[in-house]
Amino acid sequence: MRLSEVAGKVGLTFSGHDIEVSGVNTLASAGAGDIAPLLSRKYLPQLGSTQAGAVLCEAEHAPEGRSCLVSKNPKLDWARVVALFAKPQGCLTGVSPQAFIHPEATLAENVTVYPFAFVGARAKVGPGATLFPGVYVGEDCEVGEGATLYPNCVLMAGTVLGRGVTIHAGTVIGSDGYGYAQGPAGHVKIPQVGNVVIGNDVEIGANAAIDRAALESTKIGDGTKIDNLVQIAHNVQTGKHCLIISQVGVAGSCRLGNGVVLAGQAGLRDNISLGDGVQVAAQSGVGQDLPPGFIAGGSPSMDAPTWLKMSLSLPKLPELMRRVRRLEKALEGKEKESGHE
Amino acid sequence: MRLSEVAGKVGLTFSGHDIEVSGVNTLASAGAGDIAPLLSRKYLPQLGSTQAGAVLCEAEHAPEGRSCLVSKNPKLDWARVVALFAKPQGCLTGVSPQAFIHPEATLAENVTVYPFAFVGARAKVGPGATLFPGVYVGEDCEVGEGATLYPNCVLMAGTVLGRGVTIHAGTVIGSDGYGYAQGPAGHVKIPQVGNVVIGNDVEIGANAAIDRAALESTKIGDGTKIDNLVQIAHNVQTGKHCLIISQVGVAGSCRLGNGVVLAGQAGLRDNISLGDGVQVAAQSGVGQDLPPGFIAGGSPSMDAPTWLKMSLSLPKLPELMRRVRRLEKALEGKEKESGHE
Amino acid sequence: MRLSEVAGKVGLTFSGHDIEVSGVNTLASAGAGDIAPLLSRKYLPQLGSTQAGAVLCEAEHAPEGRSCLVSKNPKLDWARVVALFAKPQGCLTGVSPQAFIHPEATLAENVTVYPFAFVGARAKVGPGATLFPGVYVGEDCEVGEGATLYPNCVLMAGTVLGRGVTIHAGTVIGSDGYGYAQGPAGHVKIPQVGNVVIGNDVEIGANAAIDRAALESTKIGDGTKIDNLVQIAHNVQTGKHCLIISQVGVAGSCRLGNGVVLAGQAGLRDNISLGDGVQVAAQSGVGQDLPPGFIAGGSPSMDAPTWLKMSLSLPKLPELMRRVRRLEKALEGKEKESGHE
Repeated sequence: MRLSEVAGKVGLTFSGHDIEVSGVNTLASAGAGDIAPLLSRKYLPQLGSTQAGAVLCEAEHAPEGRSCLVSKNPKLDWARVVALFAKPQGCLTGVSPQAFIHPEATLAENVTVYPFAFVGARAKVGPGATLFPGVYVGEDCEVGEGATLYPNCVLMAGTVLGRGVTIHAGTVIGSDGYGYAQGPAGHVKIPQVGNVVIGNDVEIGANAAIDRAALESTKIGDGTKIDNLVQIAHNVQTGKHCLIISQVGVAGSCRLGNGVVLAGQAGLRDNISLGDGVQVAAQSGVGQDLPPGFIAGGSPSMDAPTWLKMSLSLPKLPELMRRVRRLEKALEGKEKESGHE
Repeated sequence: MRLSEVAGKVGLTFSGHDIEVSGVNTLASAGAGDIAPLLSRKYLPQLGSTQAGAVLCEAEHAPEGRSCLVSKNPKLDWARVVALFAKPQGCLTGVSPQAFIHPEATLAENVTVYPFAFVGARAKVGPGATLFPGVYVGEDCEVGEGATLYPNCVLMAGTVLGRGVTIHAGTVIGSDGYGYAQGPAGHVKIPQVGNVVIGNDVEIGANAAIDRAALESTKIGDGTKIDNLVQIAHNVQTGKHCLIISQVGVAGSCRLGNGVVLAGQAGLRDNISLGDGVQVAAQSGVGQDLPPGFIAGGSPSMDAPTWLKMSLSLPKLPELMRRVRRLEKALEGKEKESGHE
Repeated sequence: MRLSEVAGKVGLTFSGHDIEVSGVNTLASAGAGDIAPLLSRKYLPQLGSTQAGAVLCEAEHAPEGRSCLVSKNPKLDWARVVALFAKPQGCLTGVSPQAFIHPEATLAENVTVYPFAFVGARAKVGPGATLFPGVYVGEDCEVGEGATLYPNCVLMAGTVLGRGVTIHAGTVIGSDGYGYAQGPAGHVKIPQVGNVVIGNDVEIGANAAIDRAALESTKIGDGTKIDNLVQIAHNVQTGKHCLIISQVGVAGSCRLGNGVVLAGQAGLRDNISLGDGVQVAAQSGVGQDLPPGFIAGGSPSMDAPTWLKMSLSLPKLPELMRRVRRLEKALEGKEKESGHE
């Protein structure tokens, strides 16, 4: 592809020679046929030495005499450039005779079903969807247009996926929520008869788990992106465009607003509400409702500025204890002194 | 089903009209054919406005003139009512010709094996058990009566499951414990030649991992309920009726008594013992033995009352440091004063 | 097998009778045909009562008149002894007609492919490798000699595994890294066009996730051992012989030196470097580069000695606040006193 063609497709101008480009790479590793991005000032020194055929960067950094895609938002434009060169995973098309499709299931046009995938009774798979090997689509599921379900991912009965949903390998959606009542002879299971509803353009990482609701639906809002090994418990509802990073745990019946960000390994207690735009730092434990825009850190969590100061103080705590002991002794001394007067 | 029939089946009395009911839902969403529960006082205001055909609640809250199931233990009775309306997952019965059953395996009567499930040599599958697609039952495994193994769950060789066990999708039982000796050229694997033994009525969530013992058996006690993404390391033994919530990690050779509760994301160091009824708060890290009934919180953990007070003090730590500095200065001032006298 | 034969194979001397042995077990459970190890002084009392036919221990503990394998490094020699009695998992050999092998894939000699395993286009599977049921080997993958892929583990396209690699059930390697740019209408996916390269003799536990690089490769060094449910994000590079324990999360682009140890549930922020031999305590959160040999603990992490002292101080924090309040009052009193003079 010509650099001019790349520029046209992503809506950028280019400067320098209109070279032929065939791939993308980092500034450090790119060759003459590659485009490489300047995504952070810390890589500025690499601009001089890169072997890249073309560079994507802001106008102010565009090197003289080099082929360049000029961008006002390099990260976003880089996403678009890479998309031109990325090829989708997989090596088959059509419905494999080694798949199992229940006679009461419905497959739309252009669906790909790999060997060893299973589509249950009354399930509906939308146009252009792809089911990789080992995928299980339970009865009464609905898989939206253009969805991609990578190997061994599982949709239990009644799960609904919107348009353009991507679910990475091994993820389980719609397994039973964790609900028991205490009976005289042990824990009695509360059957989980709700389902999971996933919005449009949601992406979910590998080996995550999203439980079905006890009643009604667990819901993931449009455009929300969930990372690997995340736990979403029953009855949770997330807003749109949330980011939920790896190994986060969201306990039952939590409500997340739009644009909420939960960093890695954070945990939310059950039945709390986080307002729009809330951000929670990695490994934090949130135990109460948070208003819109709140930034929380720590376990148990507090507001981020307090948490940062507290974190800086923590290593000084043993020394602080010694200082207080010294003060107590000094004051004791003074008191004895006073007593002697 | 008539409300009177529901009442009879779960051993409750009913008041009001004996209406026809066809499902269960929340007070907020139920319709005329639904039963809805009052499980917490915070939903009391919904009792007036609910469209539910019938309500399950304690006698004192039973609304005048409305069909009602009267319960002394609403949560437990609700579990039983929901069970009447829940239908099991799955859409096939019998042994699929697209499954692999080793000629030396034994299937009891009424076993369901879905396409793409695998049953290895000498494995025994008990009466009424169900193996969903992608399930792997390794050689010499024993699957008890009425067990349900959801899609893609894996029992490595020699795993033993009791009666009525449920394992959700993607969970792996009996993979090798993490054991290495330090050799001159790196880590040398200690082969893990034990197995995993799971008691009766155990339920295990999705994408969890329970490792086989190095020697002998990792054991999960009867009636214990394990949530999604939990890690149970080799040689662990849990008592009966434990609750182990999502993303908990239990390190090697830990011993848990009966009725132990480990809340989400908590972690246990290897080789420690927790007495009967111990409770560990979410995200806690337990590094030592805990006596029966102990309630622990924090990382590293301490007794819960101390942990709660400590947690309330933490955000005040930076201010405390300033106060100590002020005290030191004040006392320094006093000492200079004294010096001047 | 005769004890003399065991001794010969692992390079140890034996004392006592040259008995016939058929297995391995703990001191507490071993019978007359078993070898049992003394791996820690805390089991010394069991040496007298064990029913084991033979014992492996250091010379100083060798019981008089009992068959004994004498070792200078019992743990390492025990690993070798157990290996003599361990049998590999699985019950089939050869390539199953119920597997799917893409016509453009290449299988070397002595490869075992179970039913319902999938090998994609242009994938190469090395000599002696074993692919259990439900394994997915994406297009252009390379699986090294002697690799074992347990049930339902997934290699997305282009993943490269070295020699002697073992991957336990349900683990996903090469799924997309979590990378998005902020666009006007939500998060825009940055296609992840790199891959994962795993060194020789690497072992990875069950239900773990290792993401492909955005560009270039995520790399796991030779001899590194990764436990269950671990998250390794895109572009991470680990050194050789690292130990990464269960539920650890390593964020994007981290660099780990050789011999790094990350204990359970620890987390690393993105883009940090850990020097050779760094050790991180369980549940710690590391937010910055650590020099070689550094031992870190806490969240956020600090050096281990400070962390240990801080941890001991934490439960005393509420009492410390009361003591400071008392000091303030006492000093206030003194000041009033001075004022009265």
